[in-house]
Amino acid sequence: MTETPTIDTIREIGAQVSNWGRWGPDDQIGTLNHIQPSDIVAAGALIRTGTTFSLSIPFDAQGPQKSGSGRNNPIHLMSVDGRDFMCGSGTPEERDVRRGYLQNADSLIIMPLQAATQWDGLAHVMFEQKLYNGFSASYVSSSGAQRNCVTKAVDRIVGRGVLLDLPRVLGVPALEPGHAIGAEDLDRACAAQGVEVGRGDFVLVRTGAIAEVRARGSWGDYAGGDAPGLGIGSAKWLHAHEVAGVATDTWDIEARPVATPDVAQPVHILLLVHMGLWLGEIFDLEDLAEHTARTGCYEFFFAAQPLRITGGIGSPINPIAIF
Amino acid sequence: MTETPTIDTIREIGAQVSNWGRWGPDDQIGTLNHIQPSDIVAAGALIRTGTTFSLSIPFDAQGPQKSGSGRNNPIHLMSVDGRDFMCGSGTPEERDVRRGYLQNADSLIIMPLQAATQWDGLAHVMFEQKLYNGFSASYVSSSGAQRNCVTKAVDRIVGRGVLLDLPRVLGVPALEPGHAIGAEDLDRACAAQGVEVGRGDFVLVRTGAIAEVRARGSWGDYAGGDAPGLGIGSAKWLHAHEVAGVATDTWDIEARPVATPDVAQPVHILLLVHMGLWLGEIFDLEDLAEHTARTGCYEFFFAAQPLRITGGIGSPINPIAIF
Amino acid sequence: MTETPTIDTIREIGAQVSNWGRWGPDDQIGTLNHIQPSDIVAAGALIRTGTTFSLSIPFDAQGPQKSGSGRNNPIHLMSVDGRDFMCGSGTPEERDVRRGYLQNADSLIIMPLQAATQWDGLAHVMFEQKLYNGFSASYVSSSGAQRNCVTKAVDRIVGRGVLLDLPRVLGVPALEPGHAIGAEDLDRACAAQGVEVGRGDFVLVRTGAIAEVRARGSWGDYAGGDAPGLGIGSAKWLHAHEVAGVATDTWDIEARPVATPDVAQPVHILLLVHMGLWLGEIFDLEDLAEHTARTGCYEFFFAAQPLRITGGIGSPINPIAIF
Amino acid sequence: MTETPTIDTIREIGAQVSNWGRWGPDDQIGTLNHIQPSDIVAAGALIRTGTTFSLSIPFDAQGPQKSGSGRNNPIHLMSVDGRDFMCGSGTPEERDVRRGYLQNADSLIIMPLQAATQWDGLAHVMFEQKLYNGFSASYVSSSGAQRNCVTKAVDRIVGRGVLLDLPRVLGVPALEPGHAIGAEDLDRACAAQGVEVGRGDFVLVRTGAIAEVRARGSWGDYAGGDAPGLGIGSAKWLHAHEVAGVATDTWDIEARPVATPDVAQPVHILLLVHMGLWLGEIFDLEDLAEHTARTGCYEFFFAAQPLRITGGIGSPINPIAIF
Repeated sequence: MTETPTIDTIREIGAQVSNWGRWGPDDQIGTLNHIQPSDIVAAGALIRTGTTFSLSIPFDAQGPQKSGSGRNNPIHLMSVDGRDFMCGSGTPEERDVRRGYLQNADSLIIMPLQAATQWDGLAHVMFEQKLYNGFSASYVSSSGAQRNCVTKAVDRIVGRGVLLDLPRVLGVPALEPGHAIGAEDLDRACAAQGVEVGRGDFVLVRTGAIAEVRARGSWGDYAGGDAPGLGIGSAKWLHAHEVAGVATDTWDIEARPVATPDVAQPVHILLLVHMGLWLGEIFDLEDLAEHTARTGCYEFFFAAQPLRITGGIGSPINPIAIF
Repeated sequence: MTETPTIDTIREIGAQVSNWGRWGPDDQIGTLNHIQPSDIVAAGALIRTGTTFSLSIPFDAQGPQKSGSGRNNPIHLMSVDGRDFMCGSGTPEERDVRRGYLQNADSLIIMPLQAATQWDGLAHVMFEQKLYNGFSASYVSSSGAQRNCVTKAVDRIVGRGVLLDLPRVLGVPALEPGHAIGAEDLDRACAAQGVEVGRGDFVLVRTGAIAEVRARGSWGDYAGGDAPGLGIGSAKWLHAHEVAGVATDTWDIEARPVATPDVAQPVHILLLVHMGLWLGEIFDLEDLAEHTARTGCYEFFFAAQPLRITGGIGSPINPIAIF
Repeated sequence: MTETPTIDTIREIGAQVSNWGRWGPDDQIGTLNHIQPSDIVAAGALIRTGTTFSLSIPFDAQGPQKSGSGRNNPIHLMSVDGRDFMCGSGTPEERDVRRGYLQNADSLIIMPLQAATQWDGLAHVMFEQKLYNGFSASYVSSSGAQRNCVTKAVDRIVGRGVLLDLPRVLGVPALEPGHAIGAEDLDRACAAQGVEVGRGDFVLVRTGAIAEVRARGSWGDYAGGDAPGLGIGSAKWLHAHEVAGVATDTWDIEARPVATPDVAQPVHILLLVHMGLWLGEIFDLEDLAEHTARTGCYEFFFAAQPLRITGGIGSPINPIAIF
Repeated sequence: MTETPTIDTIREIGAQVSNWGRWGPDDQIGTLNHIQPSDIVAAGALIRTGTTFSLSIPFDAQGPQKSGSGRNNPIHLMSVDGRDFMCGSGTPEERDVRRGYLQNADSLIIMPLQAATQWDGLAHVMFEQKLYNGFSASYVSSSGAQRNCVTKAVDRIVGRGVLLDLPRVLGVPALEPGHAIGAEDLDRACAAQGVEVGRGDFVLVRTGAIAEVRARGSWGDYAGGDAPGLGIGSAKWLHAHEVAGVATDTWDIEARPVATPDVAQPVHILLLVHMGLWLGEIFDLEDLAEHTARTGCYEFFFAAQPLRITGGIGSPINPIAIF
């Protein structure tokens, strides 16, 4: 791409990668349609050692979100806890008898669906007042998503996962902020790793951003700052390979700053709105990457089922990779 | 059991089924230790058709919890939605240009970890001021669980699932309220279904309670009312079979009213505190049960990984069964 | 009114009581403009004995709102409490030294602004896509109210309060459900009580609904059920008397069921949208009413300042009456 | 004070200023007992011009609290808003008819009681496992405060207010961080302003901290950083003057860093625990201070009634000053 891309570029590529209508006018799950039952069976066959990895960061108040940004970190509060039963009038034994030996803890969580490790569902982003597959943006009201709701996918997000470990492939600790991952990067990773990406796969792209957070001991500008991520150049590749979902270890799946001066989130527009591609963000791929580097095996069974949140435009998740 | 069981009965059975110390003094995941990597590999081999079932009820304000009970239903609110972009000053095109074509929806959820389909983790219940494995109840403070936290299990809740469909086995639409499922029921179901329960399995016990909710069109007394569920007599069976987790389609895993006049939650005390057994509640097993009845296959790959909630004493989940 | 009122009736009365433009095209506080500084001084002179009454119900999980209705009751949770400091490793003295004798409790509340005793602000209701004073309803987006926000009134809701105790005047324990309070009721109460309502007053209208809740020991259908309240016939009276605000002891300020088969909330449309009148709901007027009955004095200094919630379309309050 | 104060100093002064038992063993409102009905009448007489000032900062996501600190800023979300009614199927007129012209906005707020302008109630801080008046800290459990609850004071926080504008008195724009306000400062301000502080007064102490926030355009370290505030030396003065409450324009009422290397919050221990004095924090005194400087009148009617939050250990408020 020698010229600066603009809204016209996005419109042009968007037309090329669009999946609107591909699975009928009522489709609400997009690229998850790529997954065939036989793919799930094949993915099951990747479970060879019983080794598992959780790909989630902690959900707590120390998370990456910044105060005042519109997304708070998870707030977890106990409505009753163990210490409530340690004190009170009478001896512990007397209290036990009085309440039938009942001692339980309960708690509550308050969190943006996008607070931590998450799926962006197909009602998360719109373009020109349209959702994926052409539904009006007005279907996403204060009541939540009446089209493209995350609940449509509660039994669909399992299959083959593939890790593309770009920093290891490129011989760097982490990609530079602004690095816009394109087709060349993705092809190079596949080749270097000896793995192929195909129909119905979940592609996990490591940039090293979480490793950097850990190295410096603070989230810093992880949320909202400049960062590596997918570039406009990844759209045709992801479309051609018919992947079911793609995720990164960054706060925003797309490289920041973006390439288009006049478009705020060009990659979301291409992938999520035009393709109907499920986007995973804030995945912790560090342990997984160490394992794949050691074993040379970059494919695994992957399950990242979202919560069945009525009207949800995404979901907090605990994605799991199983070898 | 011919006499009315009391706290002494619970203490006696508790001593027999206790797993305290079994996996060392520092163990915090209890019966999940039963799962060996080879079990996960074997469970993967159960994925034969690629058929999937989500076992979660919807997370929303229409859920089973009752106002004033201390557990509210999930509250899901949009912080920005599609309609925010449909109105405003200027034409839609002008607004688009002004904001770089940014149109996104975000939302937030407020929910007790026990609001809907969930795991009770090993810090959820205590007995005589002790958690599973003997840790002091004071480890569960307002900051959450410092021992037996749900985060210890984020990569551990996958394996073989087995459905025991008691109503179909017993030829009733649903078990009666108060029906306390014991060893005989469980053995009978295994025999009738031609399935064995073994080490490291996740046993999903259907009572028909959700079917009844659906039949009457309202939750009614589902939350907190009389209901079928596991009885004291299930404890030794579950212990002997070395299951990793057990779940029901009821609000409370144990039969209500309970058998012990002087003990409020005897089954929780036996299973969760003494055995360290993971307890799943409010599972929707209806579609799964129809499938197993039709196919005669009651075993499947099961994944119900909890969210990585720091200090969590349980987790909302979307359990998935894969055939 | 002999014929059944309809949307046409509401439109006709609306035109008669409209205050749109009365205080300029930019006005966002409506009838609070009726209050002159001299009125506040005169109200201050009503403080003669130093007797005070809080007019708020408790804010807690036992409140009137019903599960699934879209308005939950307040949820109050401790993030740290006293018992957190009662347990732990070492003696209390050792722990004290370790943390510098710090022992504090903190907490958090989750509540709809309309959960309990509250003001409906002038962005709470719209009619035909317009707010009070003609602002577009689009000014109330997911970000809150950009016009008619409650913050405009943070220093304006003090002045003279007058209680109209309709049950005592009419010789009944409480008005009947559906009783639509009109001009005759209001005039009769003023005459019976020997009090005049005038410019800038806050008129508190008792129906006895809270007394009934207390008598039966439960909220029952208080929220959303049939109830007494202001009727269409009160609009011209309130307009002519130039009151600053009006409040009742009911969940909805208007009589339910409403008189108009085709209009869901006719009184809100007249009072709030056309007049710009501040509406108080769920006021507890019981202790106040006993006092006024005993003393014969129905006027008092009134302060019910709302919280300065950015974008707020109303506010939880603790209104206070001072004699 | 020439030597560095320690826990022994605090214990010694604490004994001197203690009000435990002064108003009986069951008292739960502390220094609010200083207010006599005649004081409220006298305060009412200060309402001479009808000029009002709200002393609250905005409650919103841009507030002073820092992410990860345990206190989030208020989160305000709309459950239904005006734009929900601007879109949808059919014409606006058709939609209006369909829903009976119902158009309303509702919202919800999530906030720590200490998020913004607030009272610290008498269950907010403990010392050596005791609350004010000797109640056990165990009375503040996960259910909230069962003693010294803020609800005890819902009709008690009105009376005479006095502003002490220290920066103007001392000829500086704002007090320096660490400036520990003592008896000399308070006496000097009274003398310079020609005002006396007496029994039952609410003393509002301006440090200029909010002015500095505004000057620099960001909260910066307002929350938790070094700041001016009340020092240990203010305790005897506030006790001797029998004030009902004291408030500052700082995040923490006490000067930071504190004077005692071994005690984290010495002033809270003295004022709140020993004296039972109500402490107001994050008051915005800027407009009020300009007014008092211009008029030379530093006394006014003051109302800062807390919300009736069951179990509350404090309350968000909108304090109002009326001249």
